[in-house]
Amino acid sequence: MDGPPTSIPDFSHGDGLLPAIAQDADTGEVLMLAFMNAASYAETLASGRAVYYSRSRKRLWRKGEESGHVQLVRAIFVDCDADTILLKVEQVGAACHEGYRSCFFREIVPEGIRVVGERMVDPEAVYGGGARDEGRGASDAGKPRANG
Amino acid sequence: MDGPPTSIPDFSHGDGLLPAIAQDADTGEVLMLAFMNAASYAETLASGRAVYYSRSRKRLWRKGEESGHVQLVRAIFVDCDADTILLKVEQVGAACHEGYRSCFFREIVPEGIRVVGERMVDPEAVYGGGARDEGRGASDAGKPRANG
Repeated sequence: MDGPPTSIPDFSHGDGLLPAIAQDADTGEVLMLAFMNAASYAETLASGRAVYYSRSRKRLWRKGEESGHVQLVRAIFVDCDADTILLKVEQVGAACHEGYRSCFFREIVPEGIRVVGERMVDPEAVYGGGARDEGRGASDAGKPRANG
Repeated sequence: MDGPPTSIPDFSHGDGLLPAIAQDADTGEVLMLAFMNAASYAETLASGRAVYYSRSRKRLWRKGEESGHVQLVRAIFVDCDADTILLKVEQVGAACHEGYRSCFFREIVPEGIRVVGERMVDPEAVYGGGARDEGRGASDAGKPRANG
């Protein structure tokens, strides 16, 4: 690589937060995208479970901490610029707080939006009527919801 | 969905820049991650080719504009929060400016880093000795390189 050596992943990018893609290790399905800081990455390595950083709650987000829908990490990759992380995971239950296996359950089609996934679980049963942040698929884990 | 209706994808997030994952439509391989703004997304829809936004160059980045390694978009998905985009693409040539098919050609292993991909093309042959921004896999497309 060019330039001075950097840590890999390089958390000097993106204000210390790097996007992390979770992909099903068996099927290749892209499950979700969230963010990691150095601490969440270190805990992911140490524990073998995906740990992200919730930008809205400003704290570590141990995926599955509420729902039990943990991600067992099978392999970790970094991209050419060392500023994006790819996790190959074994997803327990549903990755998405909406109850779908993948957060990418909506396809953009000429007519608008088509739901392409099937709900695996009832979000209310998993998260109840209270906070259900940790099942959120993306960067906004922890953001209050109108009907949350 | 909760709350007031929003556009999908919702470019009110992330200062108008949303992460976009490019995945091989046939093999499921994750090829790269870059960012899109509303204009690049609109052009992607209109042209059927992946168009990103280079944060460093502050302009649209038509993937393959230098290398010819375009991405033909087969399907587009949004995540539950409408703030991450997933493209299923037909990748012409190598996605990565380093000459690998995927930007995620390095695996984190206990010993450090293991290169798991094979170079498809010689980056020098594709990008020459000059700028080779557009082949960069991630958010830093266009960032000057020491040896670029």
